[in-house]
Amino acid sequence: MGIEIERKFLVDVSLLPELVAGTYISQGYVETASSTVVRIRVKGNIGYLTLKGESTGIACAEYEYEIPKADAKEIIATLCAGKTVEKTRYEYPVANHTWEVDIFHGENQGLIVAEIELGAENEEFLKPDWVMEEVTGQTRYFNSQLLNHPYATW
Amino acid sequence: MGIEIERKFLVDVSLLPELVAGTYISQGYVETASSTVVRIRVKGNIGYLTLKGESTGIACAEYEYEIPKADAKEIIATLCAGKTVEKTRYEYPVANHTWEVDIFHGENQGLIVAEIELGAENEEFLKPDWVMEEVTGQTRYFNSQLLNHPYATW
Repeated sequence: MGIEIERKFLVDVSLLPELVAGTYISQGYVETASSTVVRIRVKGNIGYLTLKGESTGIACAEYEYEIPKADAKEIIATLCAGKTVEKTRYEYPVANHTWEVDIFHGENQGLIVAEIELGAENEEFLKPDWVMEEVTGQTRYFNSQLLNHPYATW
Repeated sequence: MGIEIERKFLVDVSLLPELVAGTYISQGYVETASSTVVRIRVKGNIGYLTLKGESTGIACAEYEYEIPKADAKEIIATLCAGKTVEKTRYEYPVANHTWEVDIFHGENQGLIVAEIELGAENEEFLKPDWVMEEVTGQTRYFNSQLLNHPYATW
């Protein structure tokens, strides 16, 4: 399927523009014996099953497939012991890119990150004033890490 | 997706009928930290991504999705470090069931098993004379186990 090139940043909440029409995301993980990530996501009315390789810098092999939402919920409840990371995702276009702003819930309440997907590692992009420190590659911000080490425990 | 109810048997090769039109299967695994199995399979021209829960007796939660063959090959090569279990599968109808006879290759050469999928745990079925000892639930016959502990090492 290919390589995902994504950069992740913290957000200055006081400068954040109004965000509308967010999509609720609930995701669980099959814990692996390596850095490979097996993620099961419910995003709105669609389920996804995703395999991700170890991230090398800002690039990461990613294979994502749509699956029935009912399957995704059942897999999370059974094979992932019901443990999830929950967030609302807002899309916010800036120039020729779309920022994804994730506002986390539950034990990760208070954490807000903004991600931008790029076509190449060195692709330039406009950074709005509410986008702060880059945290790309910092493992504690990996959603898979937020499952067992949520923001509330930092 | 549901529950797979399957029973697995050894085979008397000397009595095995002629098998035709087998399909070559190559499959790798993302190693997990639990008994959950994450399998990537190339079967003929189709790829599959499958999650399986721990088997309880002869039943097992199974979620299987078709994915592009090219993706499956790439995932096996990268996320599974190229390690595979290889076999040829033959389908052989007996009465109102279809036996799947798996003839293994490579380091599992010499191992032949026959599987039958049932609609219920207590469903009756006809056992042909070439079907021998049952090995359902014996972990060393799990394909995921044959990857790291192949038949040649038994």
